[in-house]
Amino acid sequence: MKYQLRIPIAIIVISLSSCHNFKNQPSKRIANNSDLIFAKGEKITNDNFTGTAYLHPMITADSLNFTSVGNVTFKAGARTKWHLHPGGQILLVTGGTGYYQEKGSPKRIIKKGESIKCPPGVPHWHGASKDEELIQVAITNTQKGATVWLEPVSDEEYNSFE
Amino acid sequence: MKYQLRIPIAIIVISLSSCHNFKNQPSKRIANNSDLIFAKGEKITNDNFTGTAYLHPMITADSLNFTSVGNVTFKAGARTKWHLHPGGQILLVTGGTGYYQEKGSPKRIIKKGESIKCPPGVPHWHGASKDEELIQVAITNTQKGATVWLEPVSDEEYNSFE
Repeated sequence: MKYQLRIPIAIIVISLSSCHNFKNQPSKRIANNSDLIFAKGEKITNDNFTGTAYLHPMITADSLNFTSVGNVTFKAGARTKWHLHPGGQILLVTGGTGYYQEKGSPKRIIKKGESIKCPPGVPHWHGASKDEELIQVAITNTQKGATVWLEPVSDEEYNSFE
Repeated sequence: MKYQLRIPIAIIVISLSSCHNFKNQPSKRIANNSDLIFAKGEKITNDNFTGTAYLHPMITADSLNFTSVGNVTFKAGARTKWHLHPGGQILLVTGGTGYYQEKGSPKRIIKKGESIKCPPGVPHWHGASKDEELIQVAITNTQKGATVWLEPVSDEEYNSFE
């Protein structure tokens, strides 16, 4: 019910905020309402992300099962910094379109329905595409330690191949 | 595109097959088409399940990250046997309505949007509700060994509190 209200409000806000340069600004698509399976959570305020993203922690790791699960929503253009997980991570894309890149490999497009395995210790980044948000569940193996955050993803890296 | 065809075909098949006892048979609801995020996969043919269920393996565990991920679709009435995971399991419900029960605790209803932590070594079962299918992602920590399958869930257990 909340989401049914949130979407039209978000559309109004985005429309109003882009009025001043409407002719030059491509429309930012919002993932279909049906993609809102898990709660959106709170806006991420730390500096490990560029742009606007939200996190809903779903499962906390404990001493018996080191797996943590969180739902992350990236608004168009938003992305993580480069980072690595000592125990590896799995991403499940539940909505929208985004990008995923491992150090030394080209950026690739990821879409609703895809699952991605981020190998332990390999620097990578992920986020929304330029024009559409990305909703993804992150499944992190924390047994070998917490996420190691690296440098921001530059605009040149983010926009590569486009 | 495939799913858009599969749903109407499934409805026709269910309608035809229940014609002979139409008046006495409650309708079996199918989770909304929008719940079909991940592939449905293949029909499960081993005897660890009661009723009709499908499995789509999404992520295979390896020697660096012991986490496996699979999408399971239970048709109405279908459920696992009682079983346990030595390393624990996490369930993310992406569609429909089902049941989850740990040994010694009452059966509980689970719905789209919920996440459940199954503690390591605790016998439990999960499956669809009587009248509606359940779609869930299973995230299994395989580091301490494979799933241990136990006895079937009896009709009395399955129908408890109803």
